[in-house]
Amino acid sequence: MNGSGTAPAVPRPAYRRLSVEQRRSQLLAAALGLFAQRAPEDVSLDDVATAAEVSRPLVYRYFPGGKQQLYEAALRSAADQLERCFAEPDSGPLTQRLSHALDRYLAFVDEHDAGFSALLQGGSVVETSRTSAIVDEVRRAAAEQILRHLGEPEPGLRLRMTVRMWITAVEAASLIWLDEGKRPPLDELRDWLVDHFVALLTATAARDEQTARITRAALALETAAGPVGDLARRILPVADGAAHLL
Amino acid sequence: MNGSGTAPAVPRPAYRRLSVEQRRSQLLAAALGLFAQRAPEDVSLDDVATAAEVSRPLVYRYFPGGKQQLYEAALRSAADQLERCFAEPDSGPLTQRLSHALDRYLAFVDEHDAGFSALLQGGSVVETSRTSAIVDEVRRAAAEQILRHLGEPEPGLRLRMTVRMWITAVEAASLIWLDEGKRPPLDELRDWLVDHFVALLTATAARDEQTARITRAALALETAAGPVGDLARRILPVADGAAHLL
Repeated sequence: MNGSGTAPAVPRPAYRRLSVEQRRSQLLAAALGLFAQRAPEDVSLDDVATAAEVSRPLVYRYFPGGKQQLYEAALRSAADQLERCFAEPDSGPLTQRLSHALDRYLAFVDEHDAGFSALLQGGSVVETSRTSAIVDEVRRAAAEQILRHLGEPEPGLRLRMTVRMWITAVEAASLIWLDEGKRPPLDELRDWLVDHFVALLTATAARDEQTARITRAALALETAAGPVGDLARRILPVADGAAHLL
Repeated sequence: MNGSGTAPAVPRPAYRRLSVEQRRSQLLAAALGLFAQRAPEDVSLDDVATAAEVSRPLVYRYFPGGKQQLYEAALRSAADQLERCFAEPDSGPLTQRLSHALDRYLAFVDEHDAGFSALLQGGSVVETSRTSAIVDEVRRAAAEQILRHLGEPEPGLRLRMTVRMWITAVEAASLIWLDEGKRPPLDELRDWLVDHFVALLTATAARDEQTARITRAALALETAAGPVGDLARRILPVADGAAHLL
């Protein structure tokens, strides 16, 4: 067919000389791109070769364990990306730090789409105790970051539970968000999740002295123009008819 | 060894004539008892026969599909039990109805213990898209019950998301509770989860008119001596230093 087709010849990109690490990263990026569009069981090593514009034997050389090895490596790479999302400098109001980290996390969810859902929804054929352990490691890393920002070196049971409950709720919100055609808009979702964090922390503070201390310190750093001031002013009219409770 | 041992002869229970349905229920109850103590992959049909004091061929007759069929049937039976936990009459303050349903749910978690964890933690060899679908069905049933009690026939996105986020947070709390040696005590955990529901609903009400309307109606039914009155009074000192936010 060379030279005889009607379509203009598309120049193939010159074969790129990549290091082993670069090549591996390229293949994993291609795999993550495919996982974002289809169920993990529907992504073959051949698809990755096509997407990365490399030969099939090359992909098989990097992932001799086949589909399962590819999936676990892609998951490992996604988990590393996610853990980097959580890193945030120790300055400014807590809600601002949380907003920044959530912006990065939600951008990750947006980009990885179906791959993110498949990973968390369970029941997939590629799910194993190893993949579950990687997902749990990401949750633990998120909890550690939040506890670090709360400035409590020895967090008690209730504070730890609250943080982990919020993280799970954020995961659930992310899945529903993908399911619902990415509504509400990302910035609204982010602000709302921050509100939920403040609400959960305050509710726990009502019953736990350590959380109360941390919450008071965190509130002192917030401003009237910031998210907590906004939340407080919006809640007042809702609580208006509840004077009989005090 | 008959008659020659030192232990007194324990009379075996007389062979009970059960209907097919009764026998099946008995075997599933025995299986759920075993799943509460060990990982699903470590429970064999022979173990079920021993626990139920029936012959091995009998168990195999009821579950010809082996371990996987037994697990799915036990899960189905547990899901039905759980869904019954959620039913609650439409009277009294919302937090009281929620407390009653949570009492039944948490008693279920307490009783099924390791089986409950295995089910939700994923990565188990017995987990399939069918078992995930059963778990999701239970979550959906819980969400429907809560939305019904909130009295909103056409719940919007934010209200539905809030309810599902709380349900996920309750699951996470249940797993951590089992993991942490069943601390805090069940009644404290229940009250705390009710507080979290009130906090999440109120935070969402701050940004969503439908949720605001429902929250105001729900608060009107609460009493000063009830959980919301208690929560409001406990939160006041935490919010004390936050006057600069208004």
